[in-house]
Amino acid sequence: MINFVQFGAGRIGAIHAASLAASDDAALRYVVDVNREAAERLGKKYGAKVVDTKTALADPDVHVALIASSTDTHADLVVAAAKAGKAIFCEKPIDLSLKRVDTCLEVVKQTGVPMLVGFNRRVDPSFRALHDRLRAGEIGEVEQVIISSRDPGLPPLEYLKVSGGQFRDMTIHDFDMARWLLGEEPIEVYAAGSCVVDPAVGKIGDIDQAMVILRTQSGKLCHINNSRRASYGYDQRIEVHGARGRLMAGNKTPTTVEVANGTAVSADKPLHFFLERYAEAYRAELAAFLDALRKRKPMPVGADDGRQALVLAEAALKSHRTGRPVKVSSIGGRRA
Amino acid sequence: MINFVQFGAGRIGAIHAASLAASDDAALRYVVDVNREAAERLGKKYGAKVVDTKTALADPDVHVALIASSTDTHADLVVAAAKAGKAIFCEKPIDLSLKRVDTCLEVVKQTGVPMLVGFNRRVDPSFRALHDRLRAGEIGEVEQVIISSRDPGLPPLEYLKVSGGQFRDMTIHDFDMARWLLGEEPIEVYAAGSCVVDPAVGKIGDIDQAMVILRTQSGKLCHINNSRRASYGYDQRIEVHGARGRLMAGNKTPTTVEVANGTAVSADKPLHFFLERYAEAYRAELAAFLDALRKRKPMPVGADDGRQALVLAEAALKSHRTGRPVKVSSIGGRRA
Amino acid sequence: MINFVQFGAGRIGAIHAASLAASDDAALRYVVDVNREAAERLGKKYGAKVVDTKTALADPDVHVALIASSTDTHADLVVAAAKAGKAIFCEKPIDLSLKRVDTCLEVVKQTGVPMLVGFNRRVDPSFRALHDRLRAGEIGEVEQVIISSRDPGLPPLEYLKVSGGQFRDMTIHDFDMARWLLGEEPIEVYAAGSCVVDPAVGKIGDIDQAMVILRTQSGKLCHINNSRRASYGYDQRIEVHGARGRLMAGNKTPTTVEVANGTAVSADKPLHFFLERYAEAYRAELAAFLDALRKRKPMPVGADDGRQALVLAEAALKSHRTGRPVKVSSIGGRRA
Amino acid sequence: MINFVQFGAGRIGAIHAASLAASDDAALRYVVDVNREAAERLGKKYGAKVVDTKTALADPDVHVALIASSTDTHADLVVAAAKAGKAIFCEKPIDLSLKRVDTCLEVVKQTGVPMLVGFNRRVDPSFRALHDRLRAGEIGEVEQVIISSRDPGLPPLEYLKVSGGQFRDMTIHDFDMARWLLGEEPIEVYAAGSCVVDPAVGKIGDIDQAMVILRTQSGKLCHINNSRRASYGYDQRIEVHGARGRLMAGNKTPTTVEVANGTAVSADKPLHFFLERYAEAYRAELAAFLDALRKRKPMPVGADDGRQALVLAEAALKSHRTGRPVKVSSIGGRRA
Repeated sequence: MINFVQFGAGRIGAIHAASLAASDDAALRYVVDVNREAAERLGKKYGAKVVDTKTALADPDVHVALIASSTDTHADLVVAAAKAGKAIFCEKPIDLSLKRVDTCLEVVKQTGVPMLVGFNRRVDPSFRALHDRLRAGEIGEVEQVIISSRDPGLPPLEYLKVSGGQFRDMTIHDFDMARWLLGEEPIEVYAAGSCVVDPAVGKIGDIDQAMVILRTQSGKLCHINNSRRASYGYDQRIEVHGARGRLMAGNKTPTTVEVANGTAVSADKPLHFFLERYAEAYRAELAAFLDALRKRKPMPVGADDGRQALVLAEAALKSHRTGRPVKVSSIGGRRA
Repeated sequence: MINFVQFGAGRIGAIHAASLAASDDAALRYVVDVNREAAERLGKKYGAKVVDTKTALADPDVHVALIASSTDTHADLVVAAAKAGKAIFCEKPIDLSLKRVDTCLEVVKQTGVPMLVGFNRRVDPSFRALHDRLRAGEIGEVEQVIISSRDPGLPPLEYLKVSGGQFRDMTIHDFDMARWLLGEEPIEVYAAGSCVVDPAVGKIGDIDQAMVILRTQSGKLCHINNSRRASYGYDQRIEVHGARGRLMAGNKTPTTVEVANGTAVSADKPLHFFLERYAEAYRAELAAFLDALRKRKPMPVGADDGRQALVLAEAALKSHRTGRPVKVSSIGGRRA
Repeated sequence: MINFVQFGAGRIGAIHAASLAASDDAALRYVVDVNREAAERLGKKYGAKVVDTKTALADPDVHVALIASSTDTHADLVVAAAKAGKAIFCEKPIDLSLKRVDTCLEVVKQTGVPMLVGFNRRVDPSFRALHDRLRAGEIGEVEQVIISSRDPGLPPLEYLKVSGGQFRDMTIHDFDMARWLLGEEPIEVYAAGSCVVDPAVGKIGDIDQAMVILRTQSGKLCHINNSRRASYGYDQRIEVHGARGRLMAGNKTPTTVEVANGTAVSADKPLHFFLERYAEAYRAELAAFLDALRKRKPMPVGADDGRQALVLAEAALKSHRTGRPVKVSSIGGRRA
Repeated sequence: MINFVQFGAGRIGAIHAASLAASDDAALRYVVDVNREAAERLGKKYGAKVVDTKTALADPDVHVALIASSTDTHADLVVAAAKAGKAIFCEKPIDLSLKRVDTCLEVVKQTGVPMLVGFNRRVDPSFRALHDRLRAGEIGEVEQVIISSRDPGLPPLEYLKVSGGQFRDMTIHDFDMARWLLGEEPIEVYAAGSCVVDPAVGKIGDIDQAMVILRTQSGKLCHINNSRRASYGYDQRIEVHGARGRLMAGNKTPTTVEVANGTAVSADKPLHFFLERYAEAYRAELAAFLDALRKRKPMPVGADDGRQALVLAEAALKSHRTGRPVKVSSIGGRRA
């Protein structure tokens, strides 16, 4: 049995706990949350004890720290878990400060504990299949990557205020996809942002629209488009152009029903948001983590991947603010 | 130059005259129509003389009789044209009476003039591609054919009264598709019809809904479904199942535009009716006729094809009326 | 807690046991299977005891008998469970003999226990959505139903020999869909079958291809096409034509990836077979059963639905054998 | 009758001449081409005389100069035609030099002759429908425009050498689409180009890949991606995101046939290149020109539209070369 302590008993925590329960050889031993009530509820459902961080990490029979608490607690928990010798499953982002991420990852590196960062799109069945077929050479060498990633609606302002801004909060997933699919590090980032959905977003210094172009050393190009408002649901599409063809992955829908009438032929709009769209990815993520642990394989998304996506987000933010393309090397050298 | 006399200056006549005008080596010399005004209008547009049948067929420089007049005139014109030694392009059906068709085709056979019957779906680019890929063995031996063929709305009762009924008027096209795609003659027909759109249709002894099953000697099966009411436009789909796969041809739309909004993702409904859906097929039909004439090749749809589709329509009508499957051989032996 | 005894620890049994485990208020108490090893394995995984039928049904704390054993045991188990006062979840078919089904359902009726028959397509999200939108009037009154239902490949001959034949084994699901969607009982069945995939199937008196037409009193028509060989996967499509439009539900695919290259634009073939295609439906089925139990609502698919689909299968078989349409009333009057 | 002189008897010239021949009230009177043989061939086919420029423009019965000759002759012919008082239908681009375009358009402006520039995508049925539905408010205010525009393969180097480079030759169409769909002038252009298909393209100072971001004053964003190599055919897609939804227009295919087999479900790849993809647009363009002439309405694409697209191309080229975004105002002020 692989025993877990889970930090965070909220929405994402509930998903991971359910995935754990469906596993044959993993068990939730402890739940830790500042919201005692939420922790008790989750603990009761899955037979886990509610304790504090120290107690949980001190238990030698706990093998994994699953960190699904609020963003500002991630880095400290990663450090504490690493020092306690636990394997780490950490929801993205590790932290909103690149400096703090680096300090934190230094500890992880020294302790040598395995760590997965929660970019779950890498294990989404469609994106994973696209990636694997790409790497298998089905369309030849990559030339361009185009990522459409649009949320169904603005989150509450309270959320936005602590989110780190659109590039760090939302585009960061797309930066990870870009790196993964390009198969080569971007060296330059140009980002244009604007605020057209709600002026209140602009007032807190954030944006609700963005378009990005990434460029690699060898001339591969990548475009990302983001919006906080896709009234038709969560729009998550990827296309990759190679020397011999194009691979695309499209949206998923609740049903396959379509109606034809005097007006149009209409199908379902896409699944509403990430909980629905990536339900399979969340399950696959925990399975992939456990598989890597058992077989002592590299994690499907490593600690360094978490860092590099943040570097691109920082570069995008700087580009947006200065109105100029930004060299990635000016943000933070690649961690050795 | 291949010179034409065209009988009929109505809606279909106008389409054929335009196709003729776009041809490099064919010319419309005469137009014949009981509606003198319509004939004059068409003649003027394309530089053709308006004459009577006798005059037109007596001209030795006329090579082709294109028959696009009302159904009840087809058989007589075919006979007259054949006796005058003209090649024949005859809109479907040759006649609504199988007996008269046989008499008529006997003359055609004796004179040896080339004759095409206007089942234009055989030259529709999509159906033609499906057929050719099927015959090329792409999905192996045919096992089942499924034809959906649905009109956008009921024609006027006046039309229905002289139409010969749904099987002879509408399903006849699908019977031709079935024979062409099965690659083997149906030996038995079961047809179920009903009248649900308008009771007035039932009062004149016709139906507005039909489902048919055809069976061949070797066990291939074919289903046809018809309706006089597809509120979303002209529904024309074919699927063929073979030992190694399935070929389908779907509907065509005016544009490729789709809209996604809070309700659905909606595309264009199909093109409205046969004039729009088969516009390319009408052009291709005349081109194929001219090509066969020039190269002395067999016509893409021969006189006998016109007869056999009618035989299946008769069998379907008998099945519908008796409530039992009908042997095709009981309707009319295959013409030698 | 709603306690279950499950009969059958095979492939379908494993699915239902997993669904039970995910439920909040249902528990698997006993597993019964002639294959002791399979029963032990399943029991161990979900904390259930392996016992015999008598013991399980004698336990007053058992509320539900879930029957997922081999077809020939269903009827006896239904009777025993009903007499023991247990609610019944019975995989289809109740039995292959209509007479035995009637005897069995008589007992169920007398005891008044709730009973669900496992036509899981009724709770498949796409078919359910299509049905509900149809009943909500979205396309007006039903005119035609067209069901394409094709298996990826022939089952082993050993299976076919005890299957009851294609109409009772495979088409029976489509007959249930037809009744459900037509909203009116079919009164006549015409079925044409043939054997083209493997002559061995013909030798044991079965078929591997079928086409069916059903007709209702008011003139609604329904077509079903079946094949035991769809080399591209499990083909499960439904279309319903109504006075104001058409509703369709199509196939599901493993991913949304498509590739465009010098040859074609290619998407995934459909999910392989029923375990993949109806994975959600299996889960939804148990949830719907529990919901109906808790709220004392009628079952989504009742005992009588199981019987009526079998009546249509019998009618189809008779039609196929006699070559004539068969009145449904000649098979077995509607149970009062 | 509206009489035309057509300059250019090449590939595009042949298309326009055929469209003219199909018109009811327009006639091709003269053909002018340095290639005498090509001119004679076209003249003979459509009953037009082969003359020199001077003769043609001196004929008072000539109303329109249709300029479909080589790019370097456009500006002189526009000036000559304008001075002769002829209406002008000019293939894009007016010229590759913005200065020369301005001189040329000054003459057009002074003479007041109507002038259409050949951005035929504006009359393509799908793009036109998308545009009209957008302007009708179907998805609310525009937020982002995304244009994918990819050629099937590299043109010959000889062509590229005189093409003005990818931005002026290829992207110029997309810049026109962008302006038309944004409904607001871009004020800044960022363009990233690279050469990955063939190093020979790089050696002559050109690129074969490009990604562009345009930004308008109010914060609307537009992305364009280009490639000279789409091995699957001509990829021409547009999506527009608005406050209340998304409008998309996709590729067109030769047929609607799809095949399902043990590997995939495969449809036709897109039509090969612009002659096939925009065949309808070419016809619609001439019809729209004639309609505007007859009704003295503004041209669907005016002379100034030709200029502004070139301004954006210049800005993109400068951005690509300097590696920085470029203000459109720095290239050439908007013509009054």
